Amino acid sequence: MGSLERTLPLTRSSVLEAHNLIKPYIHLTPVLTNTTLSTLASTPQPPDALKGTQWEGQEPAKPKIRLFFKCENFQRIGAFKVRGAFHAVGRLVEELGLEEVRRKGVVTHSSGNHAQALALAAKTFNIPAHIVMPTISTPSKVAGTKAQGAIVHFSGSTSQEREAVVEDVIKETGAALVPPYDHPDIILGQGTMAVELQEQVSELVQQNSGLGVHGDTRGMDAVIAPCGGGGMLSGNAVALAGTGIKVFGAEPSFEGGDDARRGVEQGKRIETVKTLTIADGLRTPLSDLTWKVISDPSKVHSLYSVTEDNIRDAMRLVLERMKCFVEPSAVVGLATILYNEDFRRLVEREAGGEGWNIGVVFSGGNTTVEAISKIFAAPSEKGERAEGVLGKDGSKAAENVAG
Amino acid sequence: MGSLERTLPLTRSSVLEAHNLIKPYIHLTPVLTNTTLSTLASTPQPPDALKGTQWEGQEPAKPKIRLFFKCENFQRIGAFKVRGAFHAVGRLVEELGLEEVRRKGVVTHSSGNHAQALALAAKTFNIPAHIVMPTISTPSKVAGTKAQGAIVHFSGSTSQEREAVVEDVIKETGAALVPPYDHPDIILGQGTMAVELQEQVSELVQQNSGLGVHGDTRGMDAVIAPCGGGGMLSGNAVALAGTGIKVFGAEPSFEGGDDARRGVEQGKRIETVKTLTIADGLRTPLSDLTWKVISDPSKVHSLYSVTEDNIRDAMRLVLERMKCFVEPSAVVGLATILYNEDFRRLVEREAGGEGWNIGVVFSGGNTTVEAISKIFAAPSEKGERAEGVLGKDGSKAAENVAG
Repeated sequence: MGSLERTLPLTRSSVLEAHNLIKPYIHLTPVLTNTTLSTLASTPQPPDALKGTQWEGQEPAKPKIRLFFKCENFQRIGAFKVRGAFHAVGRLVEELGLEEVRRKGVVTHSSGNHAQALALAAKTFNIPAHIVMPTISTPSKVAGTKAQGAIVHFSGSTSQEREAVVEDVIKETGAALVPPYDHPDIILGQGTMAVELQEQVSELVQQNSGLGVHGDTRGMDAVIAPCGGGGMLSGNAVALAGTGIKVFGAEPSFEGGDDARRGVEQGKRIETVKTLTIADGLRTPLSDLTWKVISDPSKVHSLYSVTEDNIRDAMRLVLERMKCFVEPSAVVGLATILYNEDFRRLVEREAGGEGWNIGVVFSGGNTTVEAISKIFAAPSEKGERAEGVLGKDGSKAAENVAG
Repeated sequence: MGSLERTLPLTRSSVLEAHNLIKPYIHLTPVLTNTTLSTLASTPQPPDALKGTQWEGQEPAKPKIRLFFKCENFQRIGAFKVRGAFHAVGRLVEELGLEEVRRKGVVTHSSGNHAQALALAAKTFNIPAHIVMPTISTPSKVAGTKAQGAIVHFSGSTSQEREAVVEDVIKETGAALVPPYDHPDIILGQGTMAVELQEQVSELVQQNSGLGVHGDTRGMDAVIAPCGGGGMLSGNAVALAGTGIKVFGAEPSFEGGDDARRGVEQGKRIETVKTLTIADGLRTPLSDLTWKVISDPSKVHSLYSVTEDNIRDAMRLVLERMKCFVEPSAVVGLATILYNEDFRRLVEREAGGEGWNIGVVFSGGNTTVEAISKIFAAPSEKGERAEGVLGKDGSKAAENVAG
């Protein structure tokens, strides 16, 4: 087996080590602020907006929030995934030597951002990358992965079928498996964004203080990040453990996409998820490893879920107001801040009059104009979708129970 | 009349003065680079792409181009128009005194970015803003303008009907007319972006040189900007006159939207334009004043036009690759660089092996997901549109004649 024997502990100092390793290969993505959105976040929702939710008839929360957006949509390949991929590949090279890794290669099963990220990292070191993709993958994704110089292997669509092909590749080539999230090196790599974000927010807050905008020079109080397989959320949590900065996770509620939140509520990892949420990067359940971090309340404070309409509304704001091109998965954190009354009450309660500086992770921007057209199609369709949510969950009110 | 009696000369030093005046009120918008797009610009078009154009069968040009995008889509109100508006209002206040301007107010006819820009500038100084809008304006635009605190007056849709209402407002209130482009203060205000762009490109090039990416420390060689009424293009031209930096203009060719290019070719301003190009900010003809600057070859080197498909293709690249949300009018400069062989040959010829650093103005980002859905609707519709172009112009080959 070409995989890593010595794994790094999941600690902040491992994240800092990871950061040093990958810095030359990744972008230091910008942190943007936006007055309109911070003002909106700090304005109570109109009571009408709570109609049909579990908060109907309740007094809307009055949190004070300053938003800082970590724009991983501007990252290489358009998503944070290069952080984990470069870290995993860099660590393999450190452990096994470049020649050995070049001889054996790396392998993963993915048709999304991770496949492209691993292909890029491998190409950078002149290492063969084997990507196992379902036969039904869209031709453009296959072409995109091949364009990165990767060797594409086709498989059936079930996880068993994919894993069988991965096993074959490993047997044939000795390639090291680099999974999309279920590996300490991936988690530590993704966590590097939190280190940058923490520093960047501190700098921005100090600059603003200099201008007299804020009275104090506190840094970042909290971070909210999307949670799919949980690699990035747990990376953030590991990176910020012990700093006093609270870490929150956000998920889509549609068709049970909020598996992490529900798992934490039940005290047991939910192992299967079948959702067609528009936040297509977040359709995956947690793995054993990410569950361990995310279910630890000293690492992740709590998890929240948002509806498809919440995601659409937040995405429209980011596109039309911030002028940033993001994928739906990227905005579940912002959607939570704007529309989830449980989260908003928590901020009002814990942050008080001073408010919080909240770092919001925009995880990626890999979508297309066609996908956006579909997401924002006719309002009637929107209505149907909302009804679909009702039908599946039995009760719309159940959707936004905070973990 | 409350309008300005003493007008500033159209010179670079007037632009620098304008910059000092408006700096506190505008964003210093970022200049972004993008390796993928610079590489694409430096790659010859495939011969197939030239089929059906006037360059069919000819050898594609091989220019070397490094792109620097001036992101006025991140400007306040989402477009460069605040530069001219704050300058015009600031100058009124300087000339007439704040009290006088507050008593009389300002007025304009516009339903687009200029209306919002003037409303914001006026609100900032607590000056009443009268905006004359056609009765048929979309309710969201009316609401948006009112939300900026402006007083909306409705008129018919023809320019005579609008001007009559403007006259009425001036008679009643003494308000000073701040036109969208046909005024020296507007032109000088818009030109301030060129001053920033020139400095920002120099800094970026120097940083890259330090990293050994380029061998030299030349600054910006050329700028390309969209041309509608011509306020912004002429502002850029005035700002950069005498610097050695060449200024180019870009227009949509659809239904004769390339009035400036055609006018320069004919040696006479084209006074009426009726086009429904998707670049809806560029449907206006030049005014006398902007024509004087733009037809002066020592100020604007040459003008180019691009098809609707060129604009769509460039827009897709900016959205999906750069992750920047822009309106169609914003990308005609990039479309020219990527798809207009006359421009590309000029760069190959004039820049040679060293290539050019080209500043590209992204003028604004005020569009909606619905508008984008419509622009990128089914390919069949795209085909129909392309045929429409053929039908109107008589010949598709005539579309891209460089000025």
